[in-house]
Amino acid sequence: MSVQTHRISVQTRGNSQVIDLTTELIDILRQAALSDGIAVLFVVGSTAGLTTTEYEPGLAQHDLKAFFEKIAPEDDYYEHENTWNDDNGHSHIRASLLGPSLTVPIVGGRPTLGQWQQIVLIDFDTRPREREIVVQLLGD
Amino acid sequence: MSVQTHRISVQTRGNSQVIDLTTELIDILRQAALSDGIAVLFVVGSTAGLTTTEYEPGLAQHDLKAFFEKIAPEDDYYEHENTWNDDNGHSHIRASLLGPSLTVPIVGGRPTLGQWQQIVLIDFDTRPREREIVVQLLGD
Amino acid sequence: MSVQTHRISVQTRGNSQVIDLTTELIDILRQAALSDGIAVLFVVGSTAGLTTTEYEPGLAQHDLKAFFEKIAPEDDYYEHENTWNDDNGHSHIRASLLGPSLTVPIVGGRPTLGQWQQIVLIDFDTRPREREIVVQLLGD
Repeated sequence: MSVQTHRISVQTRGNSQVIDLTTELIDILRQAALSDGIAVLFVVGSTAGLTTTEYEPGLAQHDLKAFFEKIAPEDDYYEHENTWNDDNGHSHIRASLLGPSLTVPIVGGRPTLGQWQQIVLIDFDTRPREREIVVQLLGD
Repeated sequence: MSVQTHRISVQTRGNSQVIDLTTELIDILRQAALSDGIAVLFVVGSTAGLTTTEYEPGLAQHDLKAFFEKIAPEDDYYEHENTWNDDNGHSHIRASLLGPSLTVPIVGGRPTLGQWQQIVLIDFDTRPREREIVVQLLGD
Repeated sequence: MSVQTHRISVQTRGNSQVIDLTTELIDILRQAALSDGIAVLFVVGSTAGLTTTEYEPGLAQHDLKAFFEKIAPEDDYYEHENTWNDDNGHSHIRASLLGPSLTVPIVGGRPTLGQWQQIVLIDFDTRPREREIVVQLLGD
């Protein structure tokens, strides 16, 4: 068994933009020639998170954003914003809740996703960001 | 170190049913003769998630469901439901929030769970489903 | 590739206290002489969870706690509390939502965290607890 480190870089618009990373992961698996093991995806930074969803416009462009705005509204009071005099307290809360890591089994060179299940980054920050996702592959 | 792929299939009732998978994982570990490593559990599909809880009727049959209904109500407006003319926008939101994967250390052939901590699937879909959970084992 | 099991023990105050575990993980990696692989952190018990955040007083001592109190209030009705005649239904809900495990890539002996991204335990129980976090290392 071997360990390989790969990286995905994406330019985001922030503001809860949902970005599909599935194709990038499949490309990495092809280069890596990994057949069976796991892919650990980890987003560097504390204002974005990773999960899976059905990547269609309703969920990706509206429903996920509306949900996070409802449970952790942008204009609530956050002490974090006093610490740094900034505006992204809600971004941190949403990112901690969603979590920075996702682990996906790889079988026969493919992630074991459902047909309508894609791997997504949600960037909760309040400005465009260049995001780095570390993809650690373990397996044969 | 080796990689082994196992699968758990469960029939659910959907509607935020909470299903204990701990016994199934322990059975797999026994068959696999894995002593030390990790078990990566991953639910295929975008309307269910995995976590741990104390599997007792109060939490499993009432509190978890009530909580998800409060934060992502079934009858809220979801654009996803316009895309497909269906009724499970809330199921997708809840599943993305909870996350599809769970990674558990295995030590001496056992998952390192607490005494009142069980591994559970929550099926958020609006109808009964046959669910597949991929269990990827890495270790010795 | 090898598997190593380490443990972090921390004394908490409960009540959504946020505890930075980054230094403990870095110390373990140094002892373990792990260069490249993954660290799987897993908190034993069903009333605490793991994630990452920027560990500064605003988020760590106020905002995260206020957020969880808003979405799963301590004084809501939880059937769990009837099962055991206790007071920590909200602790269980919050812990299941946040999740007990976190997987972090290790590259060159270091976790691939951002500069303002720390690994934290949040202890949601209603009393001080001695917490054990299993740290399973896989890699070379």
